[in-house]
Amino acid sequence: MATNERIVTAAVVIIGNEILSGRTQDTNLREIALTIGTWGIRVTEARVVPDVESVIVAVVNEVRARHDYVFTTGGIGPTHDDITADCIALAFGVPLVEHPTIAAQIRKREAPPEIMASRLRMARVPQGAGLIENSTGGPPGFFIGNVYVMAGIPSVMQAMLGSLAGKLTGGAVVVTRSVSVCLPESVIAKPFATLQAQWPEIDMGSYPFQREGGRYGTSLVLRGTDVSSLEIAVSQVRELIIAAGGVPEDPS
Amino acid sequence: MATNERIVTAAVVIIGNEILSGRTQDTNLREIALTIGTWGIRVTEARVVPDVESVIVAVVNEVRARHDYVFTTGGIGPTHDDITADCIALAFGVPLVEHPTIAAQIRKREAPPEIMASRLRMARVPQGAGLIENSTGGPPGFFIGNVYVMAGIPSVMQAMLGSLAGKLTGGAVVVTRSVSVCLPESVIAKPFATLQAQWPEIDMGSYPFQREGGRYGTSLVLRGTDVSSLEIAVSQVRELIIAAGGVPEDPS
Repeated sequence: MATNERIVTAAVVIIGNEILSGRTQDTNLREIALTIGTWGIRVTEARVVPDVESVIVAVVNEVRARHDYVFTTGGIGPTHDDITADCIALAFGVPLVEHPTIAAQIRKREAPPEIMASRLRMARVPQGAGLIENSTGGPPGFFIGNVYVMAGIPSVMQAMLGSLAGKLTGGAVVVTRSVSVCLPESVIAKPFATLQAQWPEIDMGSYPFQREGGRYGTSLVLRGTDVSSLEIAVSQVRELIIAAGGVPEDPS
Repeated sequence: MATNERIVTAAVVIIGNEILSGRTQDTNLREIALTIGTWGIRVTEARVVPDVESVIVAVVNEVRARHDYVFTTGGIGPTHDDITADCIALAFGVPLVEHPTIAAQIRKREAPPEIMASRLRMARVPQGAGLIENSTGGPPGFFIGNVYVMAGIPSVMQAMLGSLAGKLTGGAVVVTRSVSVCLPESVIAKPFATLQAQWPEIDMGSYPFQREGGRYGTSLVLRGTDVSSLEIAVSQVRELIIAAGGVPEDPS
């Protein structure tokens, strides 16, 4: 089924002290992974970094060298702690410039000079960057090279990411199939490992869960790019569950 | 107020394809950060890594060298994809051994040989490791050197982490104070940056939020180890909000 078997990978860099301190629960990693997964781009690494210039620059340069795409979230607002644009410019060794399109958009809404100066911080992009549309009405994100710089607010991040649909080059799309069973992991561990060994191109994971009432169950998750192989392997998972005395269920 | 001013840092390593694929929303990073923050240990870095031995080994060795503590979550169950113990042993260059205390606990619940063999995978720890209690009844976690290895299931992770209370050496505890205002960030960006420059030892962050009805507001968050300085700075934040035409509110 898969026509393009190249594996395309991405790193997600979550920028912000508020995530590391525990003040804010990140949800952007999951959203990005699910969205770009459907485009044939796999998140294989994520980093959470503080608002520290040297750290952001080093991490961005490290991950952009080893992935097809890098997506950053956070740090592109108008305040002193919003340093992502500065850091990306440093990482690419280019000056930070005021983008005329963004500046014109920001200037449409009048404001006293001091407030306008703060808002115009959001017009600064690394020289040569392209823009990432923001349908929520705020300033756009930007991209340079393979690095896509988006807002931290989930609704704004989602708008920006959505605008990239169809614009990035994905590879083989990973398809997921799951089967649940009301048995502990250990009961099916051995035959499941044997099955994994038979299907090296399918990634098989076992995840315990706890239902109401305290009963433990297991979700068996199969991921691969070839749907027909995946369907065969899933039917084998159902068989091994039955052989272990369980009832295979579709995951709830 | 702070009696111990040493800064003690930690890295969190979240292990698991299910987090990177977006199948599972991680909540352990936030829980760990909030909990160990009260012990005077700051999370300054987090990594999300796949179930790939070479990656886990490299990342653990990288972060354990530069932090006082490392906390890992995930990959310590009984199935073939649970490779964390193997990876930590490799990272420390020690053999993986069956821990008699864990093995005895696991053997108490009878099972057919094949299932017992799978469950005994959870008794394997790097040679020299100590145990992390697990009050949920399952097998314990373990620690070796400065690396603390915990389960991925949030309730089990929390039980393990809770058992470490009072056993780790923290430094200065970071205290947080917040003020909210129903003004956009840009309106207070300039005076807030000026205040930050006056208080280099306090970390000041500005976080926009959206209330019901679509109105944007801003949370100003101050973090520091000296409570009396923090209280003075917070009163100055309230003053700058009033000067900007806003009403300072306690965060909801």
